[in-house]
Amino acid sequence: MNALQLVRRVTALTGFTNAAGVEVLAAEPGSVSLGLARKPELLQFNGYFHGGVVCGLADHAAGAAATTALPEGKIAVTVDLHVNFLAPADGATLVARARTLQVGSTICVVAVEVETVAASGQRLCAVANATLRVVDMPQLSGAP
Amino acid sequence: MNALQLVRRVTALTGFTNAAGVEVLAAEPGSVSLGLARKPELLQFNGYFHGGVVCGLADHAAGAAATTALPEGKIAVTVDLHVNFLAPADGATLVARARTLQVGSTICVVAVEVETVAASGQRLCAVANATLRVVDMPQLSGAP
Amino acid sequence: MNALQLVRRVTALTGFTNAAGVEVLAAEPGSVSLGLARKPELLQFNGYFHGGVVCGLADHAAGAAATTALPEGKIAVTVDLHVNFLAPADGATLVARARTLQVGSTICVVAVEVETVAASGQRLCAVANATLRVVDMPQLSGAP
Amino acid sequence: MNALQLVRRVTALTGFTNAAGVEVLAAEPGSVSLGLARKPELLQFNGYFHGGVVCGLADHAAGAAATTALPEGKIAVTVDLHVNFLAPADGATLVARARTLQVGSTICVVAVEVETVAASGQRLCAVANATLRVVDMPQLSGAP
Repeated sequence: MNALQLVRRVTALTGFTNAAGVEVLAAEPGSVSLGLARKPELLQFNGYFHGGVVCGLADHAAGAAATTALPEGKIAVTVDLHVNFLAPADGATLVARARTLQVGSTICVVAVEVETVAASGQRLCAVANATLRVVDMPQLSGAP
Repeated sequence: MNALQLVRRVTALTGFTNAAGVEVLAAEPGSVSLGLARKPELLQFNGYFHGGVVCGLADHAAGAAATTALPEGKIAVTVDLHVNFLAPADGATLVARARTLQVGSTICVVAVEVETVAASGQRLCAVANATLRVVDMPQLSGAP
Repeated sequence: MNALQLVRRVTALTGFTNAAGVEVLAAEPGSVSLGLARKPELLQFNGYFHGGVVCGLADHAAGAAATTALPEGKIAVTVDLHVNFLAPADGATLVARARTLQVGSTICVVAVEVETVAASGQRLCAVANATLRVVDMPQLSGAP
Repeated sequence: MNALQLVRRVTALTGFTNAAGVEVLAAEPGSVSLGLARKPELLQFNGYFHGGVVCGLADHAAGAAATTALPEGKIAVTVDLHVNFLAPADGATLVARARTLQVGSTICVVAVEVETVAASGQRLCAVANATLRVVDMPQLSGAP
């Protein structure tokens, strides 16, 4: 299973990302891009993507970027996440790009940029830094 | 509109919290508790609440705690959020308790504790500190 | 060597804390209080303690609180630190109180409160949450 | 007073940065580089730069980068700082490079990279993201 297949599989198996409609745009070891289209249940009362959704996309991208950089059979789980919200997430889609800053045997650190993409262009709406812990990958049952 | 009414109204108007099923358990100026019951679309592939959902609940609780401490017509929006994940969010519900550490005219700081509640008991699964910016409240249209 | 002796020894051996004048006020497993008196080389241009000094005291307190909760021969080193500055650190001394939120075999999480203490009273000037990694303690050479 | 002059003046007036020996390597609006040479009172007990010193240099660089991007008469003060420590700060000097991600009328966000520089080369040892608040600049008295 290559990096792209692994991230697609985990993203599809994860209730939150599956229900939200997270798409895996690209994945290679240590670097993952995810997309998410706007829909009502992802929004703040003002019509922008909710901060929690921005965090969730960043968190998932961070975990995927770290996991694809680890030896087979290992997975990275977030131990802490810091998100700076820079601009309203007011576009039609969100795109999160994560890349590993450090990959160790017990700890990984990942930087994430989140852009909001509208017809008029795209702009950075959040940045996040995550610390993750390396653990044994559980059995992934089910499709796909 | 008192604190509890304000938080219930904003939580109901917000697509993300409404769809997720966030309940307002308590709200007074500077202090808010929210609950969220487990369901498949909120989970990680391992069956625990997804980190993004934990962040989203913490973020919403922080915004509510700060907003209820502000003068009428003002609302607090998160500028950054730091979450430490302490234990798997493996219970049947999450409860987030937020309280303001600082309420200023332009900046608020809020601390949040998130517990996971199971039949066997409850335990702290995450803590978060949020910085928020004070802005004019937009017109809240629609029900309730 | 009990918790207080261990923290005093490491604090004295550490160039930064020794030169700054950090005092160990109390230490027991998982809980440490440090004090630091105001002097010119610790200040911001406005005469308050510099943010870096507040961070340094919080970081050292976090490491000490986690290390005293670990088995002998292990030490906790900070992998990330998040500090919220709540009020000017304008008193005559700073006091940092750290307590462990989680102590694991590879990761610890510690919460720190920093107060500024003046003749007129004391108040919370910063809070911090730190994630630390557990490693083997190096040989501590030298006095005391 | 241009950006470089402003940062040099504030750095010299600040007790902590002056005593530590912080050098301003470069400064233009929104982008500042600072250097700091190793000396005993800046070190951890293991001989590396202390985490608090890394934080202090990052914090000062963040404040300088934001302030140089603001209109004259305004200064940015840190409201929160998140630092990920990636590698031991074991070189002969530290270099912090800060650049603004957002410059607003009340809030700025700055990203900082800290490198440790040794005879054998340099590497990233920490990254930090800071949120700052815009306030009126106090009167800067004294030399230079």
